[in-house]
Amino acid sequence: MTPRFQFSIHATDGKARTGTIAMRRGEIRTPAFMPVGTAATVKAMKPEGVRASGADIILGNTYHLMLRPGAERVARLGGLHKFMNWDRPILTDSGGYQVMSLSELRKITEEGVTFASHIDGSRHLLTPERSMEIQRLLGSDIVMAFDECPRADAPRDVIEKSMQMSMRWAQRSRAGFDAGEEHAERSALFGIQQGALVEALRRESADALQNVGFDGYAIGGLAVGEGQEAMFGVLDFAPDMLPADRPRYLMGVGKPDDLVGAVERGIDMFDCVLPTRSGRNGQAFTWDGAVNIRNARHAEDPVPLDESCPCDACRNYSRAYLHHLIKAGEILGAMLLTEHNLTFYQGLMAGMRKAIAEQRFASFARDFRARYLG
Amino acid sequence: MTPRFQFSIHATDGKARTGTIAMRRGEIRTPAFMPVGTAATVKAMKPEGVRASGADIILGNTYHLMLRPGAERVARLGGLHKFMNWDRPILTDSGGYQVMSLSELRKITEEGVTFASHIDGSRHLLTPERSMEIQRLLGSDIVMAFDECPRADAPRDVIEKSMQMSMRWAQRSRAGFDAGEEHAERSALFGIQQGALVEALRRESADALQNVGFDGYAIGGLAVGEGQEAMFGVLDFAPDMLPADRPRYLMGVGKPDDLVGAVERGIDMFDCVLPTRSGRNGQAFTWDGAVNIRNARHAEDPVPLDESCPCDACRNYSRAYLHHLIKAGEILGAMLLTEHNLTFYQGLMAGMRKAIAEQRFASFARDFRARYLG
Repeated sequence: MTPRFQFSIHATDGKARTGTIAMRRGEIRTPAFMPVGTAATVKAMKPEGVRASGADIILGNTYHLMLRPGAERVARLGGLHKFMNWDRPILTDSGGYQVMSLSELRKITEEGVTFASHIDGSRHLLTPERSMEIQRLLGSDIVMAFDECPRADAPRDVIEKSMQMSMRWAQRSRAGFDAGEEHAERSALFGIQQGALVEALRRESADALQNVGFDGYAIGGLAVGEGQEAMFGVLDFAPDMLPADRPRYLMGVGKPDDLVGAVERGIDMFDCVLPTRSGRNGQAFTWDGAVNIRNARHAEDPVPLDESCPCDACRNYSRAYLHHLIKAGEILGAMLLTEHNLTFYQGLMAGMRKAIAEQRFASFARDFRARYLG
Repeated sequence: MTPRFQFSIHATDGKARTGTIAMRRGEIRTPAFMPVGTAATVKAMKPEGVRASGADIILGNTYHLMLRPGAERVARLGGLHKFMNWDRPILTDSGGYQVMSLSELRKITEEGVTFASHIDGSRHLLTPERSMEIQRLLGSDIVMAFDECPRADAPRDVIEKSMQMSMRWAQRSRAGFDAGEEHAERSALFGIQQGALVEALRRESADALQNVGFDGYAIGGLAVGEGQEAMFGVLDFAPDMLPADRPRYLMGVGKPDDLVGAVERGIDMFDCVLPTRSGRNGQAFTWDGAVNIRNARHAEDPVPLDESCPCDACRNYSRAYLHHLIKAGEILGAMLLTEHNLTFYQGLMAGMRKAIAEQRFASFARDFRARYLG
């Protein structure tokens, strides 16, 4: 029988780990990158293309889905997996981050967050209990606790109070999730560490989360403008505060070199809009660095984006064609560059997993940086 | 050895005909519908999806391609087929129609048309000779003569003078095409009948074209706002003026019921942006008529667009999901509805070909109209 949630670490190399998470809807190889499927679609991709790129799991956004098409509607239509034709695991965020960054007229109280939809201005209340209910209605496989994510440059007392409220919300999330009974028996719940850049607050948050107990632990409140050096500074200590036998998920990260540095520091899971959003804007990721395909120097270049890449964009099209498509605003340009970027990201994750398994992660990371950043 | 261009009629039923056009790059089953690949891409589709929908040939636009990325550039990159990864036949229009409908600051003389690009305002001259050169540079399989397409409601003397100039341009197009030597030996040239709604002018145009001699004959100057009744009125006589042993191509048509009525009147080939453009806007074609998927009544409808359709959109997604994608402006909505519409159009063409082969086109057309328009 497939377990509800079982994380197995197959190899470690320094702080880096590789393993698998076994769940009812499929196995997740770690370190894992989760493409973002905000509004029940990974933008410009069919789900079979997302899978073919190497993704074991995708992310869905509670905030977007609760507003459109609505969680109850998705539930009546058989859940998010059926709705969007993706039968493998889905992790849903809690709405906590997006409600801060996207909604309008927010009011935060101990109860939760009242806000106006950025789509139609309608008023909504999101609480830990409602976030759990929405994620249950969606049929999420990995449910995220509801938290508040303050700005990393907020005063320490703001960060501290916010983190402490998020920890109370984590407890309410746990209770709300467990009340889901059948859904709780088939899915997993992750807590989210907060505390911004402050080691003592990260420690306090990690301890509070472990007192509640979660299937996995996310590191929240990073990748919000603090810069890679500050982020790595936190990642030098924050993952170690979380249980070694549980997956550690760094939310909203990041650039390819962010991923390598984070895996080096013990992170197992990532999500980010960068490969999809950049693809639509004409930025492609390659082992030799990022390429802006809009640049005029590609206008007549007959070579593919990356000779070694197995994706359709690289096997069948020139840089000149991709340049043309993006300049002309053609949808196929977004489709091909998104597919390429997701393939590159998954290739990078696969490369890291293999390097860890073969105990050569340090040299992998060094070679990657020399080529990618060089 | 594959012939340069060989049209074989396998069966006729009334005026309707079914057959094949054999060309170096592949066979075209007629009656044929050609998806429009304006800017070197059938919008929102990969070429393999276009092929999977049943298309034997696509159309490329001289006007758009000469402006961006430029015909000489496409030639240096190996031609349009290689550029866009489509190895089957491509028909290119001559630019005559689009230069009238899209460009700015047009000046028409006997020599040709001077105009300003709608993209960047740059000045260009398009003549029969330059149109032939551009289509040769693109590597077109079926080249269209350069013509002028006046408004159907223009005064008769305007229509007449325009048609007569188009016939002189047809002769210059023939000479320009033949001067292409190697390309002329591997591709075909079609003339375009003009004369708007006037039978005598259509006759004069048809005779002039046959004096020059072409591989196929297009009917131009229709589908420009005259309405279906007026169009069918012209199609009651115009195809009969063109050689029975050559393909007849009705340019820029049309709605599904236009196609059935035109095949009934002896047309073999069509192109139209309708299935692709409508798809991006949320209009889907089905055997039971057009469906506006934006309509709120689809918001929670779990059934597919068309239970009998073999396309991905119908096999794997609900109307509710398609409604959500289009409302949210998601690229996947454009992808899935375009794929569906092209599949529907090709299914309609296949149905007509089969009905003609089986000598039951009249009942096919009657049943189609009862269901589609009913």
